[in-house]
Amino acid sequence: MAEAEGISSATPTEEMNGAGNLMDFLDEPLPDVGTYEDFHTIDWLREKSRDTDRHRKITNRSKESIWEFVKSLLDAWSGWVVMLLIGLLSGTLAGVIDLAVDWMTDLKEGVCLSAFWYSHEQCCWTSNETTFADRDKCPQWQKWAELMTGHTEGAGAYVLNYFLYVLWALFFSFLAVSLVRVFAPYACGSGIPEIKTILSGFIIRGYLGKWTLLIKTVTLVLAVSSGLSLGKEGPLVHVACCCGNLFCSLFSKYSKNEGKRREVLSAAAAAGVSVAFGAPIGGVLFSLEEVSYYFPLKTLWRSFFAALVAAFTLRSINPFGNNRLVLFYVEYHTPWYMAELVPFILLGVFGGLWGTLFIRGNIAWCRRRKTTQLGKYPVLEVIVVTGITAILAFPNPYTRRSTSELISELFNDCGALESSQLCDYINNPNMSRPEDDIPDRPAGPGVYMALWQLALALIFKIVITIFTFGMKIPSGLFIPSMAVGAIAGRIVGIAVEQMAYHHHDWIIFKNWCRPGADCVTPGLYAMVGAAACLGGVTRMTVSLVVIMFELTGGLEYIVPLMAAAVTSKWVADAFGKEGIYEAHIRLNGYPYLDQDEFTHRTLATDVMRPRRNEPPLSVLTQDSTTVEDVETLIKETDYNGFPVVVSRESERLIGFVQRRDLILAIKNARQKQDGVVSNSVVYFTEDAPQLPASNPQPLKLRRILNLSPFTVTDHTPMETVVDIFRKLGLRQCLVTRSGRLLGIITKKDVLRHMAQMMNQDPESIMFN
Amino acid sequence: MAEAEGISSATPTEEMNGAGNLMDFLDEPLPDVGTYEDFHTIDWLREKSRDTDRHRKITNRSKESIWEFVKSLLDAWSGWVVMLLIGLLSGTLAGVIDLAVDWMTDLKEGVCLSAFWYSHEQCCWTSNETTFADRDKCPQWQKWAELMTGHTEGAGAYVLNYFLYVLWALFFSFLAVSLVRVFAPYACGSGIPEIKTILSGFIIRGYLGKWTLLIKTVTLVLAVSSGLSLGKEGPLVHVACCCGNLFCSLFSKYSKNEGKRREVLSAAAAAGVSVAFGAPIGGVLFSLEEVSYYFPLKTLWRSFFAALVAAFTLRSINPFGNNRLVLFYVEYHTPWYMAELVPFILLGVFGGLWGTLFIRGNIAWCRRRKTTQLGKYPVLEVIVVTGITAILAFPNPYTRRSTSELISELFNDCGALESSQLCDYINNPNMSRPEDDIPDRPAGPGVYMALWQLALALIFKIVITIFTFGMKIPSGLFIPSMAVGAIAGRIVGIAVEQMAYHHHDWIIFKNWCRPGADCVTPGLYAMVGAAACLGGVTRMTVSLVVIMFELTGGLEYIVPLMAAAVTSKWVADAFGKEGIYEAHIRLNGYPYLDQDEFTHRTLATDVMRPRRNEPPLSVLTQDSTTVEDVETLIKETDYNGFPVVVSRESERLIGFVQRRDLILAIKNARQKQDGVVSNSVVYFTEDAPQLPASNPQPLKLRRILNLSPFTVTDHTPMETVVDIFRKLGLRQCLVTRSGRLLGIITKKDVLRHMAQMMNQDPESIMFN
Repeated sequence: MAEAEGISSATPTEEMNGAGNLMDFLDEPLPDVGTYEDFHTIDWLREKSRDTDRHRKITNRSKESIWEFVKSLLDAWSGWVVMLLIGLLSGTLAGVIDLAVDWMTDLKEGVCLSAFWYSHEQCCWTSNETTFADRDKCPQWQKWAELMTGHTEGAGAYVLNYFLYVLWALFFSFLAVSLVRVFAPYACGSGIPEIKTILSGFIIRGYLGKWTLLIKTVTLVLAVSSGLSLGKEGPLVHVACCCGNLFCSLFSKYSKNEGKRREVLSAAAAAGVSVAFGAPIGGVLFSLEEVSYYFPLKTLWRSFFAALVAAFTLRSINPFGNNRLVLFYVEYHTPWYMAELVPFILLGVFGGLWGTLFIRGNIAWCRRRKTTQLGKYPVLEVIVVTGITAILAFPNPYTRRSTSELISELFNDCGALESSQLCDYINNPNMSRPEDDIPDRPAGPGVYMALWQLALALIFKIVITIFTFGMKIPSGLFIPSMAVGAIAGRIVGIAVEQMAYHHHDWIIFKNWCRPGADCVTPGLYAMVGAAACLGGVTRMTVSLVVIMFELTGGLEYIVPLMAAAVTSKWVADAFGKEGIYEAHIRLNGYPYLDQDEFTHRTLATDVMRPRRNEPPLSVLTQDSTTVEDVETLIKETDYNGFPVVVSRESERLIGFVQRRDLILAIKNARQKQDGVVSNSVVYFTEDAPQLPASNPQPLKLRRILNLSPFTVTDHTPMETVVDIFRKLGLRQCLVTRSGRLLGIITKKDVLRHMAQMMNQDPESIMFN
Repeated sequence: MAEAEGISSATPTEEMNGAGNLMDFLDEPLPDVGTYEDFHTIDWLREKSRDTDRHRKITNRSKESIWEFVKSLLDAWSGWVVMLLIGLLSGTLAGVIDLAVDWMTDLKEGVCLSAFWYSHEQCCWTSNETTFADRDKCPQWQKWAELMTGHTEGAGAYVLNYFLYVLWALFFSFLAVSLVRVFAPYACGSGIPEIKTILSGFIIRGYLGKWTLLIKTVTLVLAVSSGLSLGKEGPLVHVACCCGNLFCSLFSKYSKNEGKRREVLSAAAAAGVSVAFGAPIGGVLFSLEEVSYYFPLKTLWRSFFAALVAAFTLRSINPFGNNRLVLFYVEYHTPWYMAELVPFILLGVFGGLWGTLFIRGNIAWCRRRKTTQLGKYPVLEVIVVTGITAILAFPNPYTRRSTSELISELFNDCGALESSQLCDYINNPNMSRPEDDIPDRPAGPGVYMALWQLALALIFKIVITIFTFGMKIPSGLFIPSMAVGAIAGRIVGIAVEQMAYHHHDWIIFKNWCRPGADCVTPGLYAMVGAAACLGGVTRMTVSLVVIMFELTGGLEYIVPLMAAAVTSKWVADAFGKEGIYEAHIRLNGYPYLDQDEFTHRTLATDVMRPRRNEPPLSVLTQDSTTVEDVETLIKETDYNGFPVVVSRESERLIGFVQRRDLILAIKNARQKQDGVVSNSVVYFTEDAPQLPASNPQPLKLRRILNLSPFTVTDHTPMETVVDIFRKLGLRQCLVTRSGRLLGIITKKDVLRHMAQMMNQDPESIMFN
């Protein structure tokens, strides 16, 4: 048995160096020692120390032979190789997802006769029609009614198209939820709350597995195509992290060290956002600001590399057919004016309110799902929500199309030749310059019609998104949030534009809006609104502004975006500090120690166990416990580890031993080591005394003793303890007073205490 | 005396809560307690705890009255106000510096007759000449020779201009060095090494003072104008940090808390880079990557705000007259090709080699300056270097002008109408399209001439920069480094361009360069070279690429930049891990704990004091030391604090007391408290025993005792100890074994040990 050597084959020279032994032991390539159980917290300090040790070994060996030197070089480069692979795979997957979503979204409305695997746009791309409007109705592309009945117009065709639209939507979503249910339950949701938890040092086995990767990719396409009010951005981060985890397994440096693995996952998250929006810098900042827990500078640079590779891979696949990297490419031609900051800030307030409403509503609904009968019928729930969404969405042209297309149209300014309803302005016949710089014009009937439809779409999106996010299918909320903001923003933008046109003698317009000038850009309002709403929901700040900046590519519009983002964050924070991801983390009871400051005036002694009326702490003594005592203790308690003291009287702490290691060591000793019986004494001291031969053989366990357990005094303020747990990534910490062991504080105790202090339900925290 | 109340007025109820007392005490607004001495290290945990306490008080008070509520709001907003002020002031100062440098640089060559305060460009702006070449020689602008003798041409005029150019340069640099010497010695250098040290928690009084701000701003203008091979970017960071420090003093939240103050300074550094390059995102990343030590997310967002305000303030001043935010605005019209990666990577290698050469040369020269007679004549040194620089620079048109202008010209592509020597290509008469997209052309004699001059300029810049950086004047090295890279890059770029033109049948060019096409952009090579050289010297990575990205504004060219930056970093790292700033920190012996990993296998017991043959640790006992003993201990040692133990026999640690607090407390007790005499017993226990009346009055000092000193066991690996010091920002840490106090490790001990492990001179570290 491999573990045997790790524990009992200590040579005398090794015994002498007590400190190094612990490391040797942990470093042995045993299958179980040094790993963690599912739903347990990792020990960052130990992982780091193990990696340093591994690195030291490789460096020493590299001087021995050329082959070892090459191996050490390969090891040093493996980080970059992993990043390259992550970038390539996540870029490719994002491209494939984009293409598939395009095709399947169009499949709900019709099919391409010349090649059924073409989307509407691809189908008509080669068409002979020259104008955009005609091209949209090219003969190769047929709606279902046309194909089946031959009629393109009329009530019958409309009803048939409507029916098939709903049917396809139901089919896609049913397929998605069934695949998730059967093959990969972890593939549901956006995945960001769980990834945040994992990156903070929690183990959720299978969450980033190959199976999850495959199913999430497939079901993401289905879920988005079904027309539900959800986006692909959050799930793409999950997909990228799965890729990261996949490639970690190629290198033992990453697969065997949970700390190093998390560095790779942070970079993968950056690559995910990078391909979601085509914004590599924004992706890195998103990973830094929103997702990651420990983000060393080395990771920053590698994340950037992964994000860039992913973005360029996506671009070479070119799914949007426009050679652009970004999801919503926009170009504006007019600067903004100081006075416009008022509507921008109002949009910020709207974004903050929407964020609050969404978080509260969604959390309430998810809690109801968890606690009532509702949670037992996930498939039915998805079917019903898809049905309602499809039925309500079809009649309104702004909800029928895919949300990304809607956002794209809302962001864009009306060109001179634009034929859409939203651009139905009354042109002044005297000045029909077909240039970019079109002056403000009065709105035509189409615009007013569009405004009504947009208002209905806004209400629809607000309500349905609350119920959609959190169902058992992959669902991101970037796109729906942005859609809500973009609709609201466009409405406000058109209102301001028309006010400026009709009342340019008003004092507020007088200074910056002469008649015949292009003063107001409604598309910019849509973008500002989208930023505000996304900010309100996620509480992103820098990364949000940088992503938006990368979409427009100019610093010009950064001030409006920032004003809206700041306002939205302040308004939303006034109603509750948590973003949607933190709220879901808390709802699910993940042990996530967030970066907020802990400001209560409690001390370590108030938090540590045992409490006043509880039985005393279970400890081991260094030289007076028998094997049987230890086994009883293991049987009767479920603690993860036990402090070792000099004696029960003095209570002087000498170390900490992990439950897992103790079980392995005793099991092994009983099997392999002669003379170890139930009443053998366990020694944690450096040398076991020479016992008379009549006594049973002692069991020496110093090798598995952690001689540097983390301690604080009982008078340490809890804010310091929280800080230490957070910054050093501890699992537990022992509490002493004047050198005497008093108690223990685990990460779970800290989280429970923090929840208590915030008047939350402390019992919802998952076991560590 | 104000301190008196802080120490002895403890009411019985306060006494009961032992833990809170320490905080109350530290929170009293006493002038001395809770502050640090010059050249000492701050205790981050204590600063944080004090701020939390302050915050808690304000929150509690805010419920009492409306006025207190308003005050609490003002307090919450003060951070944003400080950021706004920093942005406004540093943007304004940067604008003023730019304008002044422009004017004074031109003053070396001539003067504007219509208005002497106009620079050459401003002077000729209103001129009637229409072409650029003529405008450059507008009659209002006269060179000195022309003004004095009336001759514009000829040897006499040349010599006179030469002489006056050198004279002005000497005058400017003499003024600069004299001002620095007399008024603000801290104003010299780039300031970034010192700011890094300060941000890591070191106190250097006056380094960020008002006087330094004023003198650095003035002398920066003089130093740059004198034509020395230095830039204004590094010093601008220092100037911005001085602004930050200035505005900190407006709010007690920041002025009284060294930890909070450093958050503001991090943001100010971002604002500094933001105005230096017009790159706000790059500035924030620079602060994050290169300068800051603790960078909480709240700081990220605020830094971004400060950087943006600064950038927009600078733009509204518009010193470059082009309405552009960025220092070197460039637009390229041709994509790059895969094969070009080879020269880009070669430029990266060059950048890495240059970085190594520069760091080694400059450090060797600075060490010589410190240790030999050379350091005693700083004014003479500046004069001599300026003289040599000016004499060598004048004959070469590429070194005569300001370095920023040179870089700008090298970065830019040759337009069709460009008249400069560098763009003297032979136009094909058959295809003279005055468009942007000019095909590659054969180089004319002017280009070959320019190449020679550039090569000479390259050698000159390389040599002179090594001697310039570190003199007693403000000097940044961003611009000189970029100049070296830009020259090398442009030379390589032209070489590749001409090769591609003359040999487009070669296999490497065949695929991407047809005759008559625009294949190679020499300006891009200059930019890549600049990035490589800057990266080699500073070892920046992400921030470097992002700054360059903000200059070009397109993701298109990020891959070449990244390839060069990565190569340059790898090459430079192969010769030595330190960037120029770390090298200077080490040269000056600042106690800076860098973020590199400590990989040696030592334990806390190897580092702690007392060592084996040293006298035992100076400790106090909780109830058996007399006032006289304490006074003797204070007199005989210079430790910053003393551990307090239960008794000398048991050595059980109960707390740690600061030397400073101890001195204050005893001094005060002797003055104010009746009956405290030399043989009074000092009690650190909660209750002093009832003593017979004959005994002297005891002195109770529990209030100044830190009951939660940081401890580690003697078996803790040093890598963990280093990690703890770095992440928690400790000043010292006590070492125990089985609850017994063994020794102490201070930050200085850690730094000395790290230096030893790296075979460096451990004695050079400044006292903490």
